[in-house]
Formats: sequence, C-alpha cells, structure tokens
Amino acid sequence: MLSIETYQKEFIAYLEDFSSHKEPHNLYEPIRYILKLGGKRLRPVLTLMTAEVFDGDYKKSLDAALAVEVFHNFSLVHDDIMDDAPLRRGNETVHEKWDINTGILSGDAMLIMAYQLFENYDNGIFKSLAKLFSKTAIEVCEGQQYDIDFETRDDVTIPEYLKMIEYKTAALVGAAMQMGAIVANASIDNQNIIYEFGKNLGIAFQLQDDYLDAFGSPETFGKQVGGDIIENKKTYLYLKALEFSTGANKEELKDLFSISPNENTDKIETVKQIFETSGASISTQKEIAHYTNQAFLVLESLNISEEKKAILKQFGESLVTRSV
Amino acid sequence: MLSIETYQKEFIAYLEDFSSHKEPHNLYEPIRYILKLGGKRLRPVLTLMTAEVFDGDYKKSLDAALAVEVFHNFSLVHDDIMDDAPLRRGNETVHEKWDINTGILSGDAMLIMAYQLFENYDNGIFKSLAKLFSKTAIEVCEGQQYDIDFETRDDVTIPEYLKMIEYKTAALVGAAMQMGAIVANASIDNQNIIYEFGKNLGIAFQLQDDYLDAFGSPETFGKQVGGDIIENKKTYLYLKALEFSTGANKEELKDLFSISPNENTDKIETVKQIFETSGASISTQKEIAHYTNQAFLVLESLNISEEKKAILKQFGESLVTRSV
Repeated sequence: MLSIETYQKEFIAYLEDFSSHKEPHNLYEPIRYILKLGGKRLRPVLTLMTAEVFDGDYKKSLDAALAVEVFHNFSLVHDDIMDDAPLRRGNETVHEKWDINTGILSGDAMLIMAYQLFENYDNGIFKSLAKLFSKTAIEVCEGQQYDIDFETRDDVTIPEYLKMIEYKTAALVGAAMQMGAIVANASIDNQNIIYEFGKNLGIAFQLQDDYLDAFGSPETFGKQVGGDIIENKKTYLYLKALEFSTGANKEELKDLFSISPNENTDKIETVKQIFETSGASISTQKEIAHYTNQAFLVLESLNISEEKKAILKQFGESLVTRSV
Repeated sequence: MLSIETYQKEFIAYLEDFSSHKEPHNLYEPIRYILKLGGKRLRPVLTLMTAEVFDGDYKKSLDAALAVEVFHNFSLVHDDIMDDAPLRRGNETVHEKWDINTGILSGDAMLIMAYQLFENYDNGIFKSLAKLFSKTAIEVCEGQQYDIDFETRDDVTIPEYLKMIEYKTAALVGAAMQMGAIVANASIDNQNIIYEFGKNLGIAFQLQDDYLDAFGSPETFGKQVGGDIIENKKTYLYLKALEFSTGANKEELKDLFSISPNENTDKIETVKQIFETSGASISTQKEIAHYTNQAFLVLESLNISEEKKAILKQFGESLVTRSV
C-alpha cells in the first residue's frame, strides 16, 4: 500500500486531466474552478486506499474516486447557494464569482458527470457503483433538508441530529470506501463492513468538526473559531448543553442562540463556558470516542490481514484526533 | 399497440404510485407537486409506444418512461428558477410556491431519483439506459447554457440556434424513444434510427413551438401568444427575419427587440408583420417541414412492419401540425 500523500498526489494528477476546457465555457469553467480549489481530497483518497486494502489496483479505482470528489463538490456548490456563503476554502464561492444560475446549472452538470465516471467499469460493477452512489446522493439531499429544517425548529433531538449528520456527511465517507471495495471485487460482507467503518468514522469526524468549531485553536483550525456559535447553529454541543441545563442556565443559552450581536467575542466566550460547565463538551468528546470505537469494532470482523486493519485504524485515528 | 390515450392513462396511474408521501416532507412535497401538475406526458408516452413498436411489453418500460418524465420535470424546476418564472402550466412554480433553495434541492433529488428508476433493469440494460440518460442530461444542461449565453449575444447564427434546441429539447425526445427500444431489446441499429427519428421530430416540434408563440391562435395555444416577442427572445423566426432584412428594416427589428414597453400590442403586431414580410414565417414553416421529412426519411430504414411505421408517422405528424 502507498502512503496517504502518494494517493493524494496520484488523485490530483488524475483530476488535472479531467478538468479540461470544454464548451460551453460558461458551464464548464466554474466546474474547473471549484474542483481546483483544493481541499484535503479525503474522500477520494479513502476510495483508492480501500481498493488496495482489498487487493485491488488503486489505479482502477481512480474513476470511482473522482466521481466521489465531483459529487462532493457538486454538493458544496449547491449548498453554498442555499447557505448564501461568500467563501469556500478562502476563495469566492461559484455563485459569488459568477451568479446563482451558474451555480445551479454547473452543479447539475457535475452531478451527471459523476455518474458518467462509472461508465468505464463493466456492467455489474457499473450497476453496483451507480446504485450505491444514488442511494448516498439521495441521503445527502435528505440530510441537507433536515439541516435546513432544524434551523427553524427548537425541538431537535440528539437522535435526529445524529441522523442528519449521518446522511449529510457520514454516508458519503462510507460510500467512498465501499466504492473502492466494489472496484476491487470485495465480497458483499466485506463491502458492508467497510461501509459501516467509514460511516461511523464519518459521524465521529463531523462531531469532531462541531467540537473544533468551538474549541479548536485559531492557529490550526481552518475556519473561524466560534463560527457555529455566531450563526446560532444547533450543533451536538448546543443540543447536549440544552439537555444538561435547567432553569436560568437553559434560558440563557436559548437567549444567546437567538441573538446576533455585531461584536461576538463575549457571546462566544459565554457559550463556550456553558458548553464546558454543563458537561456538553465532555459528552461530545465521549460521543466522538464512541463512534470511533464503533468503527474500530466493525473493523475486527473484516476479512483482511492484521497489517491492513492497522493501516485503516491508524488513518481513522488521524482523522478524528485531528486539530485542523 | 394501444392508443396514445391509453398509454397516457397507464403512465399517469404509474406516476401516481410513485409520488408517495416520503420524509423529509419539505424535500418530497415539491416533487409530488410538480409531477402532478400535468402536462401532455409526451416523452414518457413515446417511451412506452417505442417499446411496443419493437415488440416489447410497454409495462416493462414504465420505469424508464418515468425516469424521462422525472428528469424533464427536474429540468423545469431548475430552469424556472433561472428564468425567474412565476407560473408553470398555470400554477405557481416550485421556487415561487416554496423558495429558491427548495427548488434547487428538490430538483437535485429528482435528478438522482431518475437514475434510481433504472435499478429494476438487469445489469446490461441498466448500463445502456444510464449511459444514454447521462449523455442526454449533459446535453440538456449544455443547451440551457447556450440558451442563456444567447440572451446577451447579438451574433447568434442559425446553426448555433439549431444546435441549442437540439440539445435543450430534441435530445430528450430522441432518448425517450431510444429507451423504449433498449428495454425492448431492439438492435443497436434500430436504437440509433429511432433516436434520430425522435431527435428530428423534437427539432421540428420546438420550431413549431417558436412559430405558434407568434402565430398561434390565442384560443388554442396554451401560452400567451407573443410571449417570445415580449421577452425579446431570439427564436428561429427572429434570427431568420434578421438574416432576410437589410438597412432600415433590420434596424427596426433590432430596435424592437431592445425595448420592453408596458403596452405590447403594437410591438407584437409590428414584429409579426416583419416576420411575415421578410419571409421568416414561410422559412420557419419550411424548416419545420424539413425536419419532419428528415424524421420520416430515417424511419424508412427501420426494420419494423409497415403498420408500425405508419403509427409512428401518424404520431409524428400530429405533433408537428398541432396548433396547441
């Protein structure tokens, strides 16, 4: 097996070839733009890595890996319109650089192009990949809808929140890995196990993201620390703090999450203190550990060598103990 | 073979079963809404009809027909956002009844659901359908982009315009028929011929739409007569009139297509006169006849009974000589 960095490099070279200058320019240029903005390329790397875990040739999984990355970027383009986000990875979002219509149409084309990337695989593999892809893509849409719905609800439960992040984020991590397994002709059992591994890791990853958004170091965390608090986002931290608080504390937290002051420093500090004193902070870390352990537990039943399990475990650990 | 009305009825019953109440409600309700707004169901009927033309069971092509209709409605939802259209088939558009974000996300889900409708077919058929579907869907996006680009260009040529309507409208008509042929296990030759038949018919159909928009009878034409003129849309009629005019006439036409008066009656009358006197009107009718004949010509080489050819020809004729 190769190193993460090598998979990343190989993937980026392949992506480079894909992003050609096609006509009509106004449809394809925004696609080139968003795909070249960078990012960790986490999902496609997982596809390549998983193909080799199951003794496949990672090169044969490059198209599937690219489909996952193109889909992920499609969802970013459309989500950024819905969230009215001006920046993505420090650069202008597509709808900001061009306009909303361009974002809609270029996004649509990306979703279709992702399916086309499976066409080089033979009939059976093609169908397995496309089926898994569609199921996952629908879950991502449903997850996005739940996320939107939660903004205007004040009775969101923890299980509902977990289902939302499973659909919106974790399903694609699981699917990225399962696609590598499919291309490598892994057994259905092994395919399902690696999907569960990825899904649990994906949930832990998103909870870690929620945690770092409040408690990450401004030097190493990629986004603005406290961003979720500023936007009154009902993250796991918030929902747990609400659950653990009573009386005046609970009201204070609710009040803080109903205001949008110009100067946020005090609000962020107070909310973080409540997250700590209420026990929400510890509880979130416990939940991250729970889903990470869950991932490692399902890994046990996987029918591969101990060395390969160790590689997957190590990569999983690096994901959920990251500080960026 | 059954009658068009029977195919329509069978299709609508099948669609009814599909549009179930799923969760999250805010994602699936707009999908139910747009799919139930009606319309002629022309494309899915073509799929069912073509399956039987090639001795298949139309019932087996219902999923493919539904995929075509779901995709068509996806494109309407997203196009209506881009065109800022308030009404669709006399009812509120999705983004008007809900909001733009709902239109984007529900549209995305419809595109994915269209692919899922192929999953009941076996591996080979599945891949053929999905491949044709992706190629067509990308063409529809490209056609829409060309259409948007043309709005701000004043050097659009007739071949460019014909390519645009081929991509935006005609490709899906051809694909709807080819999908029926694929499900019925028709030969590749027959598949390609029926695609060409549908494509040529689709171009004639769209040119007829351009023509009726100006010269249709207000009593029978579904949309506002003169709508394209009011919106300064560069249709085939306009481009031909521009080509045939010189000097002051050309300038007058250009001027008329640069203004948006509150009261449009005079503008519409003058433009229609120019369309007639310049010869653009006759030329458009000739082009409609040309593409219709082209469709009937490719039909000759199809390896099916003369009776079935006659049925296809009759249906084709009814499409392009329609007044609604």
